[in-house]
Amino acid sequence: MNALVELKSELRAISDLNAAAMVLEWDQNTYMPAGGATARGRQIALLSRLAHERRAAKRMGELLSELSATADEATVDGALVRRALRDYQRATKVPSELMEKISNHGSTLYAAWTEARSANDFAMVRPLLEQNLELSKRYAEYFEVDHPIDAFIDEHDPGMTAASLKTLFASLRAELVPIVEKLLAKPAPDRSFLDADYPQEKQLAFAAAVSETLGYDFDRGRQDLTHHPFMIRFSSGDVRITTRVDPRDFTDCLFGTIHETGHALYEQNIDRAFDGTPLGAGTSTGVHESQSRLWENLVGRSRPFWEHLYPKLQDTFPDPLKGVSLDDFHRAINAVERGLVRVDSDEVTYNLHVMLRFDLECAMLEGELAIADLPEAWNARMEADLGKRPPTNTLGCLQDVHWYCIPIGGAFQGYTLGNLMSAQFFAAATQALPDLEGQLARGEFAPLREWLTEQVYRHGATYFPDELIQRATGAKLSPKPFLDYLRKKYGPLYGVDFGA
Amino acid sequence: MNALVELKSELRAISDLNAAAMVLEWDQNTYMPAGGATARGRQIALLSRLAHERRAAKRMGELLSELSATADEATVDGALVRRALRDYQRATKVPSELMEKISNHGSTLYAAWTEARSANDFAMVRPLLEQNLELSKRYAEYFEVDHPIDAFIDEHDPGMTAASLKTLFASLRAELVPIVEKLLAKPAPDRSFLDADYPQEKQLAFAAAVSETLGYDFDRGRQDLTHHPFMIRFSSGDVRITTRVDPRDFTDCLFGTIHETGHALYEQNIDRAFDGTPLGAGTSTGVHESQSRLWENLVGRSRPFWEHLYPKLQDTFPDPLKGVSLDDFHRAINAVERGLVRVDSDEVTYNLHVMLRFDLECAMLEGELAIADLPEAWNARMEADLGKRPPTNTLGCLQDVHWYCIPIGGAFQGYTLGNLMSAQFFAAATQALPDLEGQLARGEFAPLREWLTEQVYRHGATYFPDELIQRATGAKLSPKPFLDYLRKKYGPLYGVDFGA
Repeated sequence: MNALVELKSELRAISDLNAAAMVLEWDQNTYMPAGGATARGRQIALLSRLAHERRAAKRMGELLSELSATADEATVDGALVRRALRDYQRATKVPSELMEKISNHGSTLYAAWTEARSANDFAMVRPLLEQNLELSKRYAEYFEVDHPIDAFIDEHDPGMTAASLKTLFASLRAELVPIVEKLLAKPAPDRSFLDADYPQEKQLAFAAAVSETLGYDFDRGRQDLTHHPFMIRFSSGDVRITTRVDPRDFTDCLFGTIHETGHALYEQNIDRAFDGTPLGAGTSTGVHESQSRLWENLVGRSRPFWEHLYPKLQDTFPDPLKGVSLDDFHRAINAVERGLVRVDSDEVTYNLHVMLRFDLECAMLEGELAIADLPEAWNARMEADLGKRPPTNTLGCLQDVHWYCIPIGGAFQGYTLGNLMSAQFFAAATQALPDLEGQLARGEFAPLREWLTEQVYRHGATYFPDELIQRATGAKLSPKPFLDYLRKKYGPLYGVDFGA
Repeated sequence: MNALVELKSELRAISDLNAAAMVLEWDQNTYMPAGGATARGRQIALLSRLAHERRAAKRMGELLSELSATADEATVDGALVRRALRDYQRATKVPSELMEKISNHGSTLYAAWTEARSANDFAMVRPLLEQNLELSKRYAEYFEVDHPIDAFIDEHDPGMTAASLKTLFASLRAELVPIVEKLLAKPAPDRSFLDADYPQEKQLAFAAAVSETLGYDFDRGRQDLTHHPFMIRFSSGDVRITTRVDPRDFTDCLFGTIHETGHALYEQNIDRAFDGTPLGAGTSTGVHESQSRLWENLVGRSRPFWEHLYPKLQDTFPDPLKGVSLDDFHRAINAVERGLVRVDSDEVTYNLHVMLRFDLECAMLEGELAIADLPEAWNARMEADLGKRPPTNTLGCLQDVHWYCIPIGGAFQGYTLGNLMSAQFFAAATQALPDLEGQLARGEFAPLREWLTEQVYRHGATYFPDELIQRATGAKLSPKPFLDYLRKKYGPLYGVDFGA
């Protein structure tokens, strides 16, 4: 058999095994009864192990070595070989015994974390978290990197390193902190009308209708309820989103749905010929997050978007929104707050939450910050950045699951990269579509979606993030479009003069 | 590693792969969007292939050969080795190329059948069905059997053969036909009140409540909507049922739910230590069907059951059931009819539908009945048995999916075996529980369920069907308890004197 044909057949099997594991995970998070948990964990672990064994198989190495010698990266097959080689190299770097140890320790730590978080007792997880840090360092040792976190960053956001991110985040931070200070000095917008009775069924129907209007294809997807919303892809024809509903606050369900719709629009619009290959997926965590944040914030929290949608929202929830003007509504959904919780934070302060985590995990991996000192380091930084000290560790260093279920490092930077990229893509789209604001105000989302499909979505993982951004926006990634966007939006909204 | 430990670990992996495939099938039949179909078929096929490869692996043969030499069948491990050896022998008998051919042909034929059935055009599937018959014969040739259908019967109902079934069915038939004739000679009960407005949500809530009352554990299961209801087991902690709703007839959802609940009670009450082994499943199609039919018919359509439940049903649907007496209701849900469709047929005529199919598939496999003559053979037999000729092939030989998606043979006898066994188990339970009727009339289902758990459920596949029936009822399988049950129930209901 031709080596390329054999490679594609093997990649398809790996993709199908991963997809099967994901169906089991989706079910686990939506419909599975409690009694199914033990066996389900075992079933998912088996599928993941079988996929890993194929990804790291000797024959895979031989095929890739043969094919990459002659591959032309400018072709689709060349890009495919490049991605597959990268996956193979990552899969074979770390001994499977260590991988298994990390995975098992992650399950133990996760269970301890859920208890420690609700008991507000960091001591309950401290020894297990120390072990996780040790395992993370051992993992990183198998990579030839300048900084241990680079081993993890490369997995999620290829092309980025601790060094490049520290530079990028420093320049973002230098301009973001004064913006936050100026906005927080102003009176907070009235959000009282958001705390009212918003019936679950109406929320779900409204959110699904918005998702469909933005372009989510329900014939190739569906929406279900879960605790921690996510998007998940089983194939190009089956890309699902999930949501949750707070009956006293419709924004959780609505903006959460738009966020997951952004992820799903990316996956649903990847070239279907890439299905079953490593190209049939978003290219990085950061680029993926750029699409969820673009649709959630740059579109979904914009004034033009609500010009179109607000009357429909008022029709759906007449009681709580009676007499609330569009301007007041728009201010309320863009309130900037001194919040303690990342996932509830607004788009301005969000990046401070992310950079805090990134800096702390760098320090932990460098050996500069001991686990025992993590709670205080977290609280001190929150106080410095946002002027508010978490009253409990539950609202501090116990709030996010990441460090407590997977190795420490690399899982946070993508959120801020996504914010920066979202503004840079949106600025480029605005250049290409001069009437974009008008289109959004008329509920016409196809032009933006099609531009993004052409520039970003359809390529899947053909290009690495830096290549994709350069092609789509004509420039390297920069914090400038995001900072410009914040100033332009929040200046008028808060009556702040950010200068020229 | 100890051979038994190695065997159990391998069996667990096979069980987990099968369970994963079943989660994908469950999703396919409940929630999957249309766009997911192609990839899903591929994913399920891959998991099935991986499970088959492990089941038929050389090492599996070595382990089983070593272990079965010394296994004591009276122990659990001995029973496990016996079942695993049986599975291994079946898995290695037929070359995998033929298995794959059959599977692929099944998909093609199934697609053609759905069109042929709605077009009422047998000619559309005739050539493909002829090929399926040829493939079925080739499959059977790999087994050392007296009749080709034995190769298939052994898969579903081990211990049975064409010869033993022909004898059993002949003695059933000899007494059943006169019973049917006498009942059909009487006026049909009034069923008009069943055709009314029964709102979907109320039907689902009522059916779920009944299921729970019978003992179905929703912490280890759930109920969802589908087109063709089924029960499915992913582990002892996750055994699901599905149903469908006809808003003009609550009996479809209610009795369908009780039927699937019967299957689920079997699976939920298998010894949990058998999870992940071939013993952690019902022992045969016939025994499984005996439990769905026992709960659906011997309990669910009995007079005592409705003494307890009918007031609740009237409370739930007051309009259509106002003024309908318990006796009239009981007669209506037990109407015996000259029906053309197996799945809609009553418990008296049902076995005539099954025996028709069994006899025709025997004849096809024997070469006595050509596919071209199948429609006429079907229609003639329906006319002889039930005095009614199907006006279309859609209502004749195109009605059931079985011959059009899997090999021809062995998929029907289990329905009638289940009916016979259900009455034999119920008669033994009545012996053991003298107040059983009173218990059912008071809504006390635990004594019956616990007796069945002790005698049938907990053993899973430890015993083959003939062993299980002998242990539980003290006798070989016989049509007598079923015929006695019919006469005792339908005599008074229809005012027919069946003699002493």
